[in-house]
Amino acid sequence: MAYIKIDESLPGIRGLMSFSPYTATPLNALAELLLRSDVGLTKGERELIATYVSYLNECFFCQRIHGAVAQYYFNNVDEDLVRKVKENYKSAPISDKLKFLLAIAENVQKGGKYVKIEQVEEAKKFGTTDLEIHDTVLIAAAFCMFNRYVDGMGTFAPENPELYKQRAKRIAEETGYVNSI
Amino acid sequence: MAYIKIDESLPGIRGLMSFSPYTATPLNALAELLLRSDVGLTKGERELIATYVSYLNECFFCQRIHGAVAQYYFNNVDEDLVRKVKENYKSAPISDKLKFLLAIAENVQKGGKYVKIEQVEEAKKFGTTDLEIHDTVLIAAAFCMFNRYVDGMGTFAPENPELYKQRAKRIAEETGYVNSI
Repeated sequence: MAYIKIDESLPGIRGLMSFSPYTATPLNALAELLLRSDVGLTKGERELIATYVSYLNECFFCQRIHGAVAQYYFNNVDEDLVRKVKENYKSAPISDKLKFLLAIAENVQKGGKYVKIEQVEEAKKFGTTDLEIHDTVLIAAAFCMFNRYVDGMGTFAPENPELYKQRAKRIAEETGYVNSI
Repeated sequence: MAYIKIDESLPGIRGLMSFSPYTATPLNALAELLLRSDVGLTKGERELIATYVSYLNECFFCQRIHGAVAQYYFNNVDEDLVRKVKENYKSAPISDKLKFLLAIAENVQKGGKYVKIEQVEEAKKFGTTDLEIHDTVLIAAAFCMFNRYVDGMGTFAPENPELYKQRAKRIAEETGYVNSI
């Protein structure tokens, strides 16, 4: 049961978005812009950054749903990629560029000041663009918000992985994040 | 100097919003909805929550600008209120309800799971509504994003308090947060 009266049939952030549709609009618009673009970072890379930050914040709902979307995009690379990234992204079968970006995201999760110019310069040496660095920092920062919103309101999250998988497919193939309540 | 090439004449989040106008739109819309309403929480209470979270996250730019806006609204109560809230909100000249809400915001800053049902129930005993609790959690969560975005990109923030004061007056009386770059 959430800490306020919401529609308990809607898990995670969805019950909150139904309670407050006004704020849901910019929140969904932000998720759509940050996660559903292939300019610079791919959709899969964006979802993987979101998943990893949600994992660090121990947000069950967000890491499950975004993990399922990330896995959907990476199925052709490795059917168990999300688990491998969570366990140790440095040894996961992803590009060096993405490893540098996950390291930046990891520091954003701790706090903005943990991101250091040296690690950004290092990422740039691997061909990372300003836009990719910008998007990585903002995705990581945004998930520090989404995770706190979901858990700070005490929302419930289903256990069944199949539910997340089905919804992830629908988000990836049909709805995206706008009007996806 | 920020970690990416942005217009360095625009401090804090403003240079980032100029670099990425697409994401600036939902970010500004969110700030406008969360901070510029008097339904439930007043504008001053909302800005005070934003300021306190930015202070806890040690984000110089955000605590200065939102602190200046909060102080603008509270000038008739106490000309030094923001400093008093930062030092110890429990002894500051604010309502008991706002003290409970700042305690919730303080826990959101640490992480969503730190917010406990008991403290929400306690806040409700002081007449706090579901909407006020929702908005407090989302304001605190959103500033965990804004603060990380501003500092995680290494943006600069002016020292001169007068600049923040002037801009705060303009935000409060004229522009709000939409199209305020």
